[in-house]
Amino acid sequence: MSRPEYRWPMALVLVGLLCRAAMAQKATDPLPSWNDTPTKAAIVAFVRSATDADDPGFVPAAERIAAFDNDGTMWVEHPLYTQVVFALDRVKELAPQHPEWRTKQPFAALLSGDRAAIDRFTTGDFAKIISATHAGVSLEEFRAIVARWLKTARHPRFERPYAELVYQPMLELMRYLRAGGFRTYIVTGGGQEFVRVFAERIYGVPPQQVVGSASKMRYEYRADGRPELVRRPEPLLIDDGVGKPIGINLVIGRRPVAAAGNSTGDRQMLEWTQAGIQAHQPGARLLMLVHHDDAVREYAYGPDTQVGRFSAELMDEARRRGWIVISMKNDWRRVFAWQE
Amino acid sequence: MSRPEYRWPMALVLVGLLCRAAMAQKATDPLPSWNDTPTKAAIVAFVRSATDADDPGFVPAAERIAAFDNDGTMWVEHPLYTQVVFALDRVKELAPQHPEWRTKQPFAALLSGDRAAIDRFTTGDFAKIISATHAGVSLEEFRAIVARWLKTARHPRFERPYAELVYQPMLELMRYLRAGGFRTYIVTGGGQEFVRVFAERIYGVPPQQVVGSASKMRYEYRADGRPELVRRPEPLLIDDGVGKPIGINLVIGRRPVAAAGNSTGDRQMLEWTQAGIQAHQPGARLLMLVHHDDAVREYAYGPDTQVGRFSAELMDEARRRGWIVISMKNDWRRVFAWQE
Repeated sequence: MSRPEYRWPMALVLVGLLCRAAMAQKATDPLPSWNDTPTKAAIVAFVRSATDADDPGFVPAAERIAAFDNDGTMWVEHPLYTQVVFALDRVKELAPQHPEWRTKQPFAALLSGDRAAIDRFTTGDFAKIISATHAGVSLEEFRAIVARWLKTARHPRFERPYAELVYQPMLELMRYLRAGGFRTYIVTGGGQEFVRVFAERIYGVPPQQVVGSASKMRYEYRADGRPELVRRPEPLLIDDGVGKPIGINLVIGRRPVAAAGNSTGDRQMLEWTQAGIQAHQPGARLLMLVHHDDAVREYAYGPDTQVGRFSAELMDEARRRGWIVISMKNDWRRVFAWQE
Repeated sequence: MSRPEYRWPMALVLVGLLCRAAMAQKATDPLPSWNDTPTKAAIVAFVRSATDADDPGFVPAAERIAAFDNDGTMWVEHPLYTQVVFALDRVKELAPQHPEWRTKQPFAALLSGDRAAIDRFTTGDFAKIISATHAGVSLEEFRAIVARWLKTARHPRFERPYAELVYQPMLELMRYLRAGGFRTYIVTGGGQEFVRVFAERIYGVPPQQVVGSASKMRYEYRADGRPELVRRPEPLLIDDGVGKPIGINLVIGRRPVAAAGNSTGDRQMLEWTQAGIQAHQPGARLLMLVHHDDAVREYAYGPDTQVGRFSAELMDEARRRGWIVISMKNDWRRVFAWQE
């Protein structure tokens, strides 16, 4: 045999071994979309500690509850919250039945496409829009409308369905926690019923594990005698800020030991989760805030937005309390499943 | 050997075999406290049907949700709801701090022991008492107060702690359903936080599976900066009547396929559960009402009480819709674990 013929197979064997080693590492890495930064190390250390009965950070299985904010933590929230985009589309769809909207704000600005006025919309304006477009509809109808919208709507920049704008690293984190016996919850300032439509399919989070803002409901009968729940235009729970611990208590009845958010509205959820230690609930904690600092792959924003505001005070508090600030740019190898 | 000496061992062997057969049957019977009546047969048929993928009544695992009312369905509610007894005890305990109660109804009647007035208390009176005694207390304090009370309080007739006045057949039904992959929920008109204190210990139902009446909450800070949830005196949700489907939707987000109650306040819960079939949720259903017709072992009451009222209309509706009416007297071999 000539030398080259002898050496090539050796090289191939080596390459093959290296590939197998790399694949094995990939197969065992539960967080392949995370870079090897201190953030990833902290997550792995938390799960090891919480699930090891001999570790001081051990958390009994029943208390392994992880709460995830939705908008900006699990999926894209810029330029507008997805549910707001949905509500704006509904205003246009319902406008023929509401001639009064042509002269009534905030509807008039929206229908005339007054971008400057829309940019100045307050939370109260959005609340009016959501309330007007969501109320009076039965739960079943509402779910069907949202499901239909999610199939056709596209994000203006990424030109993909919103369900594809989920952060792959956060999905991996959820799965990793579930593999460690955690129950993963969505705790969203958005509508509980809106998020329930897709949470099971895209996050693996079933309806009973979605906490969110909720309307009052009416129990009504249709002509055929069949009962249904119909949304009323008044809020029952605004699951944002102080509403998050309140919503968590209402639906879960236990404090989480892990919580992830990305904005000022998640402050109390993280605080409440961390304070469980003082309330005689020992064990490790995982407290995280996603920081949007990646204008190239997603968006970069902080204190300077009304959509997912991450104030300077929150950043200070995170440092002071040891909450992990996830840098989208540095901690995430990829942002979306379809990026490489 | 004489004849008797020869025959006795044979008889012993026979008795032994019979005992073993009886024990084997008992070991495999998941509902030993139920008599062999059509009710028991219907329960067994439901579980077989719902858990058999080849049966038309099959229910996918995620939809195996069973909702149980608490007072009068899981434990004794006469002569007064347990939480009302708790609230009355709290009025006496807190009276020194509330001199105004001595002249203010319904507190005055209660503190002076005016039995005739107490017997005329309306739901509104009880709501006032519960609100006044439960509000302003942090969740942690409230849970501790309830836990302490449950240890010392005794039922006036049975002279046992309330936690021992649980219906053994219903406990067996819950366990049997859980063995079939069902998630069992308590859906109570009583306080969600009151029931959460004992539901895990006495029913095996964890806090996130307790739906109940809830107060609004305040998120407050203690002097040491630690956050806590404090009960406000206004209701958020009255989980009774039409409030039961609303509460179920809020906390579970899916319709149950099995529901058990015992009074007029459970009507809509059963109706809502049954109507899931029309809402494109196929599969078997188990709909039950406990009828208190056993004055010897427990109580006998129906339309003639304000505590767990089972109206004539409800009885008619049960017949018309095929809801199973459990006769405590005939269907239950024993009522409490300590009987027999």
